[in-house]
Amino acid sequence: MSSNTFGVLFRFTTWGESHGEQIGCVVDGTPPRLALDEAWIQHWLDRRKPGQSRFTSQRRESDRVRIVSGVFEGLTTGAPIGLIIQNEDARSKDYETIKDKFRPGHADYTYQIKYGIRDYRGGGRASARETAMRVAAGAIARRILGEDVAIRGAVIQLGADPIERGNWDWAQVEQNPFWCPDPEAVRRWEAALDVARKRGSSMGAVIELVVTGAPPGLGSPVYGKFDAELAAALMGINAVKGVEIGAGFKAATLSGEENADEMRMKEGKVAFLSNNAGGVLGGITTGQDVVARFAVKPTSSILTARRTVTTTGEETEISTKGRHDPCVGIRAVPVGEAMLACLLADHRLRHRAQCGG
Amino acid sequence: MSSNTFGVLFRFTTWGESHGEQIGCVVDGTPPRLALDEAWIQHWLDRRKPGQSRFTSQRRESDRVRIVSGVFEGLTTGAPIGLIIQNEDARSKDYETIKDKFRPGHADYTYQIKYGIRDYRGGGRASARETAMRVAAGAIARRILGEDVAIRGAVIQLGADPIERGNWDWAQVEQNPFWCPDPEAVRRWEAALDVARKRGSSMGAVIELVVTGAPPGLGSPVYGKFDAELAAALMGINAVKGVEIGAGFKAATLSGEENADEMRMKEGKVAFLSNNAGGVLGGITTGQDVVARFAVKPTSSILTARRTVTTTGEETEISTKGRHDPCVGIRAVPVGEAMLACLLADHRLRHRAQCGG
Amino acid sequence: MSSNTFGVLFRFTTWGESHGEQIGCVVDGTPPRLALDEAWIQHWLDRRKPGQSRFTSQRRESDRVRIVSGVFEGLTTGAPIGLIIQNEDARSKDYETIKDKFRPGHADYTYQIKYGIRDYRGGGRASARETAMRVAAGAIARRILGEDVAIRGAVIQLGADPIERGNWDWAQVEQNPFWCPDPEAVRRWEAALDVARKRGSSMGAVIELVVTGAPPGLGSPVYGKFDAELAAALMGINAVKGVEIGAGFKAATLSGEENADEMRMKEGKVAFLSNNAGGVLGGITTGQDVVARFAVKPTSSILTARRTVTTTGEETEISTKGRHDPCVGIRAVPVGEAMLACLLADHRLRHRAQCGG
Amino acid sequence: MSSNTFGVLFRFTTWGESHGEQIGCVVDGTPPRLALDEAWIQHWLDRRKPGQSRFTSQRRESDRVRIVSGVFEGLTTGAPIGLIIQNEDARSKDYETIKDKFRPGHADYTYQIKYGIRDYRGGGRASARETAMRVAAGAIARRILGEDVAIRGAVIQLGADPIERGNWDWAQVEQNPFWCPDPEAVRRWEAALDVARKRGSSMGAVIELVVTGAPPGLGSPVYGKFDAELAAALMGINAVKGVEIGAGFKAATLSGEENADEMRMKEGKVAFLSNNAGGVLGGITTGQDVVARFAVKPTSSILTARRTVTTTGEETEISTKGRHDPCVGIRAVPVGEAMLACLLADHRLRHRAQCGG
Repeated sequence: MSSNTFGVLFRFTTWGESHGEQIGCVVDGTPPRLALDEAWIQHWLDRRKPGQSRFTSQRRESDRVRIVSGVFEGLTTGAPIGLIIQNEDARSKDYETIKDKFRPGHADYTYQIKYGIRDYRGGGRASARETAMRVAAGAIARRILGEDVAIRGAVIQLGADPIERGNWDWAQVEQNPFWCPDPEAVRRWEAALDVARKRGSSMGAVIELVVTGAPPGLGSPVYGKFDAELAAALMGINAVKGVEIGAGFKAATLSGEENADEMRMKEGKVAFLSNNAGGVLGGITTGQDVVARFAVKPTSSILTARRTVTTTGEETEISTKGRHDPCVGIRAVPVGEAMLACLLADHRLRHRAQCGG
Repeated sequence: MSSNTFGVLFRFTTWGESHGEQIGCVVDGTPPRLALDEAWIQHWLDRRKPGQSRFTSQRRESDRVRIVSGVFEGLTTGAPIGLIIQNEDARSKDYETIKDKFRPGHADYTYQIKYGIRDYRGGGRASARETAMRVAAGAIARRILGEDVAIRGAVIQLGADPIERGNWDWAQVEQNPFWCPDPEAVRRWEAALDVARKRGSSMGAVIELVVTGAPPGLGSPVYGKFDAELAAALMGINAVKGVEIGAGFKAATLSGEENADEMRMKEGKVAFLSNNAGGVLGGITTGQDVVARFAVKPTSSILTARRTVTTTGEETEISTKGRHDPCVGIRAVPVGEAMLACLLADHRLRHRAQCGG
Repeated sequence: MSSNTFGVLFRFTTWGESHGEQIGCVVDGTPPRLALDEAWIQHWLDRRKPGQSRFTSQRRESDRVRIVSGVFEGLTTGAPIGLIIQNEDARSKDYETIKDKFRPGHADYTYQIKYGIRDYRGGGRASARETAMRVAAGAIARRILGEDVAIRGAVIQLGADPIERGNWDWAQVEQNPFWCPDPEAVRRWEAALDVARKRGSSMGAVIELVVTGAPPGLGSPVYGKFDAELAAALMGINAVKGVEIGAGFKAATLSGEENADEMRMKEGKVAFLSNNAGGVLGGITTGQDVVARFAVKPTSSILTARRTVTTTGEETEISTKGRHDPCVGIRAVPVGEAMLACLLADHRLRHRAQCGG
Repeated sequence: MSSNTFGVLFRFTTWGESHGEQIGCVVDGTPPRLALDEAWIQHWLDRRKPGQSRFTSQRRESDRVRIVSGVFEGLTTGAPIGLIIQNEDARSKDYETIKDKFRPGHADYTYQIKYGIRDYRGGGRASARETAMRVAAGAIARRILGEDVAIRGAVIQLGADPIERGNWDWAQVEQNPFWCPDPEAVRRWEAALDVARKRGSSMGAVIELVVTGAPPGLGSPVYGKFDAELAAALMGINAVKGVEIGAGFKAATLSGEENADEMRMKEGKVAFLSNNAGGVLGGITTGQDVVARFAVKPTSSILTARRTVTTTGEETEISTKGRHDPCVGIRAVPVGEAMLACLLADHRLRHRAQCGG
C-alpha cells in the first residue's frame, strides 16, 4: 500500500499538514556514498518556494530543509534519509470561516466523506504544501542520476494561450516568473494573469517536461511501464487533470506512417528520425528525450462566491480568501521535474536489479 | 515490484507471450463467496476477441478461458484464481522475416536493448494479446463491484474525426464495430477506416470511459490517488499516449469560476452542478460519474515500408505483414473498461481496510 | 521494498541513527477517528526506556515523543502520523576508539561490506535505539485493536535458567526489572546478572509473548501467514536468533496424537482442549491465545578483549566500553509486544479488506 | 499484499488446490539470458516427489513441470516464467467423510472461519502440495545464484532423536529416505518411523539448512533483514513451528564472550573463528555459511480418532484416512532449500539495485 509513499526501490514517504508543525519526508533506497548536503536540496527547493513573484502565493515560507538522518560526513550511508521543514507562516485563522463548508474544486468534501474528519486548516494533508517534499526527494534523485541526465520543465500554455514553439529558448525559462521558454508569451501572460489575480480569479496551465540523457532500457513491460508510472506521477500532482507522452492526444490523429519514428545509424548508434513516442516504446525508454506534458486546472481558491453546502447539509455560498497562487500550474514546474527525477532514479535501480549494469 | 502485476489488494499477475502455448493470469485478493464461473468471464472476453469485424485483426482465437483454481462449487474461496487461455492461431512464420529488424513504433528495440534477448514472435510479451487477461480479471472485478456500478466505454474520436456529443446514445455502442455512441460518426468512420485498411495503413482513436454508481470515498490522498492510478492503468494499455480525467486538458483553459463544480442539496444528498472534476477531487471519488479519456496511437504494424535498423546495426527497411488491427483503439475499449473495473475493485477493498464499511 | 518499513496496510517507516539528531517514524494506514495523544504513546515508550534499573543501559534518554502530523483535535485523521524523538544523551566520543574496528557480534562488519561506509557512532542505524519507534508504532496499533485484545510479554529464561511455569503470575511482570512472571526466578536472576554486569560480561534471554482476545481469522494462507510474519517480526528485533510458535521446537518431539489440539463446543462456541498450535493453524489465527517465544543472544558489547580486524585489514583486539545493557533481552520485551501489536493491527485491516466485518 | 506471493524482486506467485486441475506458479523478476529448461526444474522437483519410499505419501504424482512462458530458445527473456503441473492422482472421495468436520491440527477450522467456505478436498489450498511450486521456483533461483552457492538441507532430528553431529556426512544425505547425514541415525529412525507408520501415527522432525558460498552483504538492515525474512520463509512452510539461525535458542545460554564470533585475517580476507551468528549479523550476510534450523510438527492426519466438532457446531470424532506422510518433516527438506534459494536470489537482486556490483 502506498497512500503516502512514492516509488519502488528509490522511494519516499511524506507526512505533514499545511498548517501543522512541520512537513517531512523519509527517502529510502538511496545508494551509499553519494555526496549530499542540505545546500544541494535547498537549491531545488528554492525554485519552488512561494512568494517569489506577484504570481505565486504570498505565504512566506523559508522552506529551510534539514537532513536528520542517512548522511554521514557528507555522504549517503544507504540508511533512510530523513528530511524536515518547519512550517513558519501558517495562518490558520484564515480558514476558520470555511471549516464547515466544502470549497468547490478542493478535496474538502471527499476527505470528509472518506474519513469522517478533516484537518481543514490550509487544506491539511491535501495542500500543495506537501509538494515541497517531492522537490526535496527529487534533489536526491538527481544525485543518483548524475549530471548527464538533465530534467527540465516549462510552462507552455497559460489558460488558452500557448507559446510559440519556434521561440523556445531554455535559457529564458529561469528568467521569468512563469518558467516560460518564449519571451513573447511572457508579456501576454503577465497581462492576463494580472487581470485574473486582481479579480480574485485564477487560470490553468500546461507544463512540458523534457529529459535529455535518459538511459535507454529503463522501465518494465506490461505493468511497471515507464510511461504508465510517469502518468501516475504527474496526475498525482495537485490539480493535474491530463497527462500525455510524446505526440500524446495528437497521436490519435496521425496515420501509422506519420507516427512511426524511423531509425537510422548515426556514429555507430541507433538514431531516431522523430520522437512521436516521447522517448518510450513498450513502456521502456529508448534513449531519446523523454517528453511529457500535463495540464493543471485553475486554482480552486477564488474570491467570487460559489454555491456549496455545509458539513451538516445546508446550502450556502463560499468565497475563498487567503494567500493563493493565481495559477498553481506555475509552481507545478519544479514539482513535475522532481517527480520525473524520482521516477527515473527508481527505474534505474529497478533496471540494475534485474539486468545489472 | 510489479512488472507483471496490477493492483494492491485486488491484484492480478499475468504471463504468456503472443505466440507461446498459453496466456494466463492469477487473480489474488478476491473476497470469498462471490458467484463466479467461466461463462461470466467469457462474456466479457468475447467483447474483446479479434476477428469480429473487418476492422479488427483476422487472427482466429476463440479465447476460451478456463478457471483452474480459486473457485469451488461456483463460489470464490478467497484463494488465488488461476485463469488460462490457450493460444490457437499463432502464425509465428509471419515473423521470421522481422526477427532481426526493429519495427518502428513497436517495443522490439527497447526489449532488445533492455534484455539483450527478445521473443520476436508476434511481439512476444509486448503484444496486446496480453490484454485478454486484463479483461478476464476485469470480469472478476465487476463481481466485486456488484450491479450498481456500471463501467462503460466508447470510441469518441477516430483519427481526427470526433463524434457529435449531442448524438450520444449508449445503446448504439454495442451495435457497431467501433463501440461508437454516435450513429452518424459510424458511417464516416467505416469509410475512413476502409480506406486506411486497404492501403495497409492505420488510424488512432480516443476512448472515453464512464462509471456510474461509483461509491464516493474511494482513493487515497497524495500517492495512491484514484486519478493517478487510473492514469497509470490507462497509459499502461498498449499504444496509449495520453490520459485525461473530467475536463482534462481543457481544464487548463477554464477560469477558476468556470472550473468549480458547485454543490447543492438534492433529496437530502450532496449534488454537484457540473463535473469538470470527472468524479475525483483530491484523489478521492466524489460519487459523481467517473469520466476519463485516453488516446491510442495508430497501429504501428503497417504495410508501407519504413526505415529502420537491424539488431546488428545495419540500416534497412521494413513493412509489416501479418494480421493486424487497422485501429487498435477499437479493441482498447473493453480493455480500458476492465482496467477501470479492476482499479475500482482494488480501491473498494483498500477503502474498506482503512475506513471499514 | 521494505528495508525500513514494517507492515502492509498498517505500516510504519523509521529513520534515524543512534547518535543522530533525532529518530522518527511515519505510521501510515491508521483508521480515522481513533483517540490518540502523546501521553498514550509515551506510556508505552516509558516501559522500554533505558536507565530504569542497574540492569539496563545507563544512557539517559527521556524518549519524549512528539506527534507532528496525522492527529487533529485529539483524533487520527487517516493521514500519516509523524512521530519524532530527539536524541539527548548520545556520547559519540565513546565510539571514536572503535571507528576503525569491527566489534564481534555487531553489524559493523556487515554494514561496511555492504555499503562501503558506516555511521559508527553508537552503532548508527543498527542500534537498538531504533526500537523506540517500534514501541511508539505499537502504541497506535493497540488503539486499532481496542481494549479486548491484550498483548503481554515476559522474560521466561535468563541465560540457561528458566522460570518455573507453575509460578507464573502476570501481576509480577511489572514489578521487577526483568519483566519476569516468577518471583523466585527474579532472585536468582538478580544475582546472576549482577555477576555478569560487574565482570563487563553479558547474558542472553528467552521472551514469551501471549495475546489474549485475538480475533480468529487473521492471517493469510500460503505467503502472508500470520505465524510466518510473526517470525519475521520477532527475528527482526536486534539480537534475536530463534523464534517459535506454540509448542515450537518441542512439537518435533510429539506424536501426532499428542500434538493435535482437540475441539469441543463450549457455551455455543468452539473450544480447543490444548494449544500446541499457539493460536495459529494454516497461517490463520484460531481465536485461542497466540503464544510465541524468541531467543535473544547476549549483548555483544563486552569489556573482555576479543580478537578482531580493522577496516583496513589488520588484526587487533577490541573491548567495548560505553553504557550497555548487560542483557538486551530484557528491554526486548516491550519491543516484542509492540511488533506483535503492529502485526495484529495490520492483519486486522488486511482481513477486513478481503473478508469485510 | 502478498498472500500468495513470495519475494520482492525475485518473486513468485502460486495458485492451485491439492485436488484441483493443476497447480501453477509465475516467477517474476528473473534476469534475462539465463539457461533454463524443464529438465533443470524437474531435477529439483523429483527430490520432493511423493511416493519415493514407504516413509512418504503414496499419492502417485509424476509432478511433471511445464514451462509455459518466459523462456525463449533455452534462455530466460526477463518476462514472467509460467510453470504448470497437472494434478494426476487426486482421490477426492477420500475426503467426502470429512467435509463437514474440522481435522485437528489442520487449517480446516481457520479457513472456514476466515472465508466462510473451503475447498475441503485434500486440504485445498492449505495442502503441502503447493510446495511443489516453491521447489520449482527454487530451481530458477539456483540459476541466478550460480554454481558457487550451494544450498543443502538435512533432517537432524526425528521425533526426540537427534543425529550425532560428529557423524555428519553430506554424501549420506542423498542415500537414505530421510535426507539424514548420520548413517547410524538412519537405522534408528527407520525402526521408529515404521512403528509410527503402522500405528497410523506420525512424527515430527528438525531440519538444518546450510548455505556455502553465500556472498557477504546480502540483506537489509532493520526491516528487510535477511534473517527475519528467512524466518518468515521457513515458518511459512506447512507444519513448521520454530525457526532458528546460527546458535539459535542456545545463544540465550551463552555469555557474551562465548557468543562473539572473533575475526582474523586469512589469506588477505576476513575469517571468522566461529559461527554462532549463523552467517548473519545485523540482518546482513557475513560471507560465512548461512545456518538455519526449523522444527516440523508431526503430520496432523492420523488414524487414531480425535475429538472435534462439525461445521454446524456438533461434537464428533475424526480419524483421518488417506495417503499421508508419516513425517512431513522429511519432504520439507527440499522445500526449505528452495525457500532459502529464492530468498538468496531475491536479496542478491535487491543488493545489486541499491549497491551495484
